Amino acid sequence: MNQKQNLQIIPLGGLGEIGKNMTVFRYGDDIIVLDSGLAFPEDDLLGIDLVIPDITYLVENKDKVRAVVLTHGHEDHIGSLSYLLRQMNVPVYGSRLTLGLVEGRLKENNVTNCNLIPVNAGDQFTIGKLMVGFIRVSHSIPDAMAIYIKTPIGTVVHTGDFKIDQTPVDGKLMDIHKFAELGDHGVLVLLSDSTNAMRPGFTESEKTVGVALDEEFRAAKGRIIMATFASNVLRVQQAINSALKYGRKVAVLGRSMVNVVSIATDLGYLEVPEGTLIDAEEINRYPANRLLIVTTGSQGEPMAGLSRMATSNHRTVAIYPEDTVLISANPIPGNEKSVGKTIDSLLRLGAHVVYERSSGIHVSGHASREEVKLILNLVRPKFFIPVHGEYRMLKHHGKIAETLGIPNENIFIGENGNVFEFTAETGRMAGKVASGRIFVDGLGVGDVGNIVIRDRQQLSKEGVLIVVITLDKQNGHILSGPDLVSRGFVYIRESEALMHEAQNRVRQALEKFENGKVTDWATIKSQVRESLSKYLYEKTGRRPMILPIIMEV
Amino acid sequence: MNQKQNLQIIPLGGLGEIGKNMTVFRYGDDIIVLDSGLAFPEDDLLGIDLVIPDITYLVENKDKVRAVVLTHGHEDHIGSLSYLLRQMNVPVYGSRLTLGLVEGRLKENNVTNCNLIPVNAGDQFTIGKLMVGFIRVSHSIPDAMAIYIKTPIGTVVHTGDFKIDQTPVDGKLMDIHKFAELGDHGVLVLLSDSTNAMRPGFTESEKTVGVALDEEFRAAKGRIIMATFASNVLRVQQAINSALKYGRKVAVLGRSMVNVVSIATDLGYLEVPEGTLIDAEEINRYPANRLLIVTTGSQGEPMAGLSRMATSNHRTVAIYPEDTVLISANPIPGNEKSVGKTIDSLLRLGAHVVYERSSGIHVSGHASREEVKLILNLVRPKFFIPVHGEYRMLKHHGKIAETLGIPNENIFIGENGNVFEFTAETGRMAGKVASGRIFVDGLGVGDVGNIVIRDRQQLSKEGVLIVVITLDKQNGHILSGPDLVSRGFVYIRESEALMHEAQNRVRQALEKFENGKVTDWATIKSQVRESLSKYLYEKTGRRPMILPIIMEV
Repeated sequence: MNQKQNLQIIPLGGLGEIGKNMTVFRYGDDIIVLDSGLAFPEDDLLGIDLVIPDITYLVENKDKVRAVVLTHGHEDHIGSLSYLLRQMNVPVYGSRLTLGLVEGRLKENNVTNCNLIPVNAGDQFTIGKLMVGFIRVSHSIPDAMAIYIKTPIGTVVHTGDFKIDQTPVDGKLMDIHKFAELGDHGVLVLLSDSTNAMRPGFTESEKTVGVALDEEFRAAKGRIIMATFASNVLRVQQAINSALKYGRKVAVLGRSMVNVVSIATDLGYLEVPEGTLIDAEEINRYPANRLLIVTTGSQGEPMAGLSRMATSNHRTVAIYPEDTVLISANPIPGNEKSVGKTIDSLLRLGAHVVYERSSGIHVSGHASREEVKLILNLVRPKFFIPVHGEYRMLKHHGKIAETLGIPNENIFIGENGNVFEFTAETGRMAGKVASGRIFVDGLGVGDVGNIVIRDRQQLSKEGVLIVVITLDKQNGHILSGPDLVSRGFVYIRESEALMHEAQNRVRQALEKFENGKVTDWATIKSQVRESLSKYLYEKTGRRPMILPIIMEV
Repeated sequence: MNQKQNLQIIPLGGLGEIGKNMTVFRYGDDIIVLDSGLAFPEDDLLGIDLVIPDITYLVENKDKVRAVVLTHGHEDHIGSLSYLLRQMNVPVYGSRLTLGLVEGRLKENNVTNCNLIPVNAGDQFTIGKLMVGFIRVSHSIPDAMAIYIKTPIGTVVHTGDFKIDQTPVDGKLMDIHKFAELGDHGVLVLLSDSTNAMRPGFTESEKTVGVALDEEFRAAKGRIIMATFASNVLRVQQAINSALKYGRKVAVLGRSMVNVVSIATDLGYLEVPEGTLIDAEEINRYPANRLLIVTTGSQGEPMAGLSRMATSNHRTVAIYPEDTVLISANPIPGNEKSVGKTIDSLLRLGAHVVYERSSGIHVSGHASREEVKLILNLVRPKFFIPVHGEYRMLKHHGKIAETLGIPNENIFIGENGNVFEFTAETGRMAGKVASGRIFVDGLGVGDVGNIVIRDRQQLSKEGVLIVVITLDKQNGHILSGPDLVSRGFVYIRESEALMHEAQNRVRQALEKFENGKVTDWATIKSQVRESLSKYLYEKTGRRPMILPIIMEV
């Protein structure tokens, strides 16, 4: 008997946040995972390198996971794949460029023996009981795709990240027809990118950036240094085109920029005529007006190319007054300050810096309000789940859907871990699965939790004061100490009196015990901590972490 | 003989930054200090509460400082005054509201016996050999003033923070005539606010906010909760006006909001008819549509009113689905993330949240491009120093001045501490004086320096591992330990094997010495540190701060 199952859609990342995108589709015993991204930590996650989704649900249902399908090669869509593949060996579908970028990451993380299956837009695969298809979309990286999944009870469409670029640089128009066709045949659920849903109008075409860049090239007298996202291959292509036009050689600097340019060139996504590229060491052999330097650091990341140049810390490139610096990116929220600092440093060095939104040398890769409306109207889904966005963006996207006629009760604004359950007729929230943030710190995955983070937060603000005492095991007398060591609290050399008096306070606190022969260390420690804390707060207004350590001999 | 002196203008804060504004004017033996502000620390200044200007120059020339003149009562203009007045007893001139706010601050900091001299716009005082006058300007706080100083060699004008509001809420129009008159008689140097110089057009009038607020009041069904800057008295006035119109009582919550409303009411800047205000405890006695709650937290500050409500941590106010929340402010750069989080939390609780720039419920207090041009054209200074802004803003403001006909060589883009020296005919950069950032942490002023900050940065990212060993003074044998204590590194209970092996490594490192009887502690410590650091990095990819502590008995 062919019992109809429910379709479950479970976002494990990307809801209520920008980043670590991951959506699980489950129909009966078949699970398909769409994307496996990472997020960069927020400021309060001190010392954390990366944040990845909690995939407990997938690990528990390992035997049912049939495939990971990737929409495109950005870190927030592929960055946690190596962690997932360490837990389960499943085939990974993606475009050639996406897989090219994935391969590099997997190698870095020593994940081998993977089954990577290249797909083209338009392809369709049977995976378990499901049919999975790939649709070309425009985005700020080539070969981005939306994905549809045909199940026995209906079709689901997930846009991935997208914009509708009517004049794409590579001529590969988004497959609007396919969205229309799917809509014609009836779509049960649409999941769509909310990143820019609050932005009015249409997002400009990438081609407009080419025109603005060309204008800067025409006007520039000295070197041109352009910083952008490494993965924005067509942006780099347009800069190279202008360089060729104005007789400039191109030096590519910055680890990730070099890496992507090399992969994209190998795979044919980037066309660079022979003799165009030069090595970093050759830069000084060419006159200033014959040079384009393409590099990273458009977000003010302290270790990236442009930031190092701005702070005069770059190995090969110093900034001179005749230089034109093109920052072909907008600051990602949270990076405004560091980008501002980079610009200021470049201006101080005398460079001509082009960076304002109004300069036209950057456009977004995400659909604005009118574009998300168009997709909603083409696909005409019965149910709608806005994805990829902070809560207010999802909410806003939901409201847009409502204005287009989707009933409010068919629009689901959810959180990571929510189970959205559908039949051919109905949709509902049906509980939650484990979900959340797993912290990657150095080699550790998930070994830094809230306690460690809380300790780091206290240490970061107030520092630490260590009190060491050696006691006689027999009679509880102090044999050595109290010795005080502090870091991040006060500069000890300038605070001798304070430290001296602090030592006295510890001795006084201990005297009570020595007479009374209390050997309960916990009591001694808490007594020391309390009296020190009180004293130091009175004197300094600060509350360092106080760590009493008692040694017995 | 009446020898003509040079005029020196020395900015000690506010150049290359937004915040801690302070400008020194010196003519011969007379020094006048304009504003004494503070800045809030950047993210990397861990644990620092406030940043104030280095006033070494003023302390060294204490006997010449004749007065502090204040342009208005914002923290970035008055917030370091108590630190300055602790170093020297000088008269302070400011408007009544400014001094009202100053008094509160001084009391908090136990600074007494101050000579506070209230001034009105239009007043002029002889201070030393100088004539100092006050000009009314518009800003986001009432009673803001520009200041001019007449010296024997020419007149200087400093705009303070300003915008040109043609329809001020309190009807007190900026004294444009005075700027024109000064310009007519010839101005040697103009210093002007650069904060919004990069923004095209004119800044909207505060009155437009009143209209937008009123519209929200008309539409709101439940309670209205408005968050804004406490010091924006006329914004609060407009909200109260709408509350009165629609029959709502007003509860004022949040320490700084309560404080400013009380001072502004006492001094007659805020008109609140009797029976309008209610206490926090009375809120629940009124129906939702009869209430306006005015509070702080428009910047997502975690401890402020709105943020506490959003996270359901407020003492008296919970958020309900019928509530309308008006965030009448734009995020200050750096606060975008926390403001976004507050909005998301409020939306999750079901509130209707009004916050976008397009909603019209906030306008800036700073002059846009066309306004700064108007001031430049009215004042027609010989020399121009753009102030109050990060470097790119100063630079941009300088370029604007150039387009208006001020010669490039008469425009000075400087840094804090630069000495700008003028005669009646000439202007030049003439060296530097001590300047910079002094950190306030708790009760300590300047006692936290770069070493402590660097330690905090390491502690914040990697935590600390303490290694304690007690040695026998006679023979160097280990009597106790090595004991390991870690905080912010790994969660020890889950890392027993790691810690156990780390202990072994320390023992191994010590064994060498025990046999060889090395009693040089520095060598022992560095050996322990090195071998542990290497081991931990291999195993965890992290570099905690390692603190070996050796006790001898």
